[in-house]
Amino acid sequence: MYTLGIDLGGTYARAAVVDPGGRIIASAKTALTERAPEAVVEAIASAATGAIASAGGAQVHGCGVGVAGQLGENGRVLVAPNLGWRDVPFGALLAARLGRPVRLVNDLAAAAWGELHAGAGRGVKDLFVVYIGSGVGSCVVAAGRMVRGATGVAGEFGHIKVVPNGRLCGCGERGCLEAYASGHNLILQMQEAIAGTTPTLLSTLSGNDPAKLNPAVLEEAVAKGDAVAKEIYERGVGFLALAIANQLTVLNPARLILGGGVLNHTRGILPRIREGVERYTNFNARSAVQVVTAELGDDSGLIGAGLLAVGD
Amino acid sequence: MYTLGIDLGGTYARAAVVDPGGRIIASAKTALTERAPEAVVEAIASAATGAIASAGGAQVHGCGVGVAGQLGENGRVLVAPNLGWRDVPFGALLAARLGRPVRLVNDLAAAAWGELHAGAGRGVKDLFVVYIGSGVGSCVVAAGRMVRGATGVAGEFGHIKVVPNGRLCGCGERGCLEAYASGHNLILQMQEAIAGTTPTLLSTLSGNDPAKLNPAVLEEAVAKGDAVAKEIYERGVGFLALAIANQLTVLNPARLILGGGVLNHTRGILPRIREGVERYTNFNARSAVQVVTAELGDDSGLIGAGLLAVGD
Repeated sequence: MYTLGIDLGGTYARAAVVDPGGRIIASAKTALTERAPEAVVEAIASAATGAIASAGGAQVHGCGVGVAGQLGENGRVLVAPNLGWRDVPFGALLAARLGRPVRLVNDLAAAAWGELHAGAGRGVKDLFVVYIGSGVGSCVVAAGRMVRGATGVAGEFGHIKVVPNGRLCGCGERGCLEAYASGHNLILQMQEAIAGTTPTLLSTLSGNDPAKLNPAVLEEAVAKGDAVAKEIYERGVGFLALAIANQLTVLNPARLILGGGVLNHTRGILPRIREGVERYTNFNARSAVQVVTAELGDDSGLIGAGLLAVGD
Repeated sequence: MYTLGIDLGGTYARAAVVDPGGRIIASAKTALTERAPEAVVEAIASAATGAIASAGGAQVHGCGVGVAGQLGENGRVLVAPNLGWRDVPFGALLAARLGRPVRLVNDLAAAAWGELHAGAGRGVKDLFVVYIGSGVGSCVVAAGRMVRGATGVAGEFGHIKVVPNGRLCGCGERGCLEAYASGHNLILQMQEAIAGTTPTLLSTLSGNDPAKLNPAVLEEAVAKGDAVAKEIYERGVGFLALAIANQLTVLNPARLILGGGVLNHTRGILPRIREGVERYTNFNARSAVQVVTAELGDDSGLIGAGLLAVGD
């Protein structure tokens, strides 16, 4: 029995026909030219039609959609920052257009679910999945079930407070892990640094162009001994490693799965997290956990959304 | 269908006949005169016999035992500090003596399960339960299921690291939350304070008798403006409040249930934790959580162990 998995990003909608083992039979993607819900529904319908056609017109049962945002009851999207949406009855709109049941899931939960069933989480039932990209997000799987929380917002690991009343975060609160350690915030801190008075290699390496600042440049400056870069980097990665290590102590997963663009493009982060786990996770939990990287890349969300279409 | 719930403490074994709704039909308790596993088995058997007799000779199906310690497979107790046990096949010994199946569960998990079904957790499915007593322990319930972790040691919240390379904890590691915030460690810090050179009301209030130091005395000294006491108290309670607030952000429970002797006898802790949750838990999770105190006291473990005898 095939299902349809949709990954709704900020610029593209991707669709895949997924088999029950989490293999992608065929996929397609359609650019989002507008962000109005009706336009996004049409883009998804096009991608879905393309994916189904590419799968030889396969029958699909159910459709799961991974959405970057906060979801409410009955397929409502409460907040989707990338799309500028607030309280959109998106599930109902899409189900009406596709003529099939639609289940909305958080994009990180979909990615974690994909890794659990077809990627780096195969063979175990307890996972902590952390994605370090533009933001910092996580998903907890316990005994093979996703931990969603009472109102579906479990996993907001990026918004734990690491510095009481610290840096302002995009969420509006202060001192969040994400405010120090996400890609977006590492870049913000680099921008503040080159605008500051202390000389830093970050200016030289970027030619003073804020658009050229990224975590890889930060790491290059650290490698060259730049003190300003080192402070930003050590603080962010240090908070991240300690917070992950502590979460393993509480959750006792069999695997920690790490993914996301910043992790993949900043070579020093993975070893630092491994070191943090060795040093700070309580011994019982530490001896039970393997630290691995995500295997499915961008496909994890498609696969997970497809698998979640028919329940978890 | 009744079950038998056992709470194995360091000085007593308590037994109760529990109904499926989590009511205690009858209970009994027997002192532990020795800590040898065979002697403890006999004490439990006596308490169980007493409870069953008090329940009019009720039929009981299955027996759950809450044990303060780390449990392994097949009813083995890997470490039970209160009893001085290491790798004892206690479940098998007790099952042979009682002539009925025995299930061992962590004492905190039993207490949380009791609160979930018959106490402060009634009516919801997602809980974070924190006991602040001699140690600091926790239990996570997600969608009505206990989060046990890959090797059954989930919930070791007392051993997350709040100060890298900080105070030595009883677990052998450094900087654990418990090393600052548990009853045992608050007292240790008070003992260090009165042995130190800075004058402190803790000396006066205790008559310099280390045996008279306890968290209530600490709070009294803080209320009287003692700076040394204030530092110990603020640090411990501050770490506790922030760590709990952050865990709510990750887990998104419907209720935070707080219990334990230190919480119950130190009036200032509960308001401080409430304040920490208000201030530091991410808004989505914060708006979903009620902060309540445990309702069942010492009975929660008995009730939970009885309910867990027949599965969770």
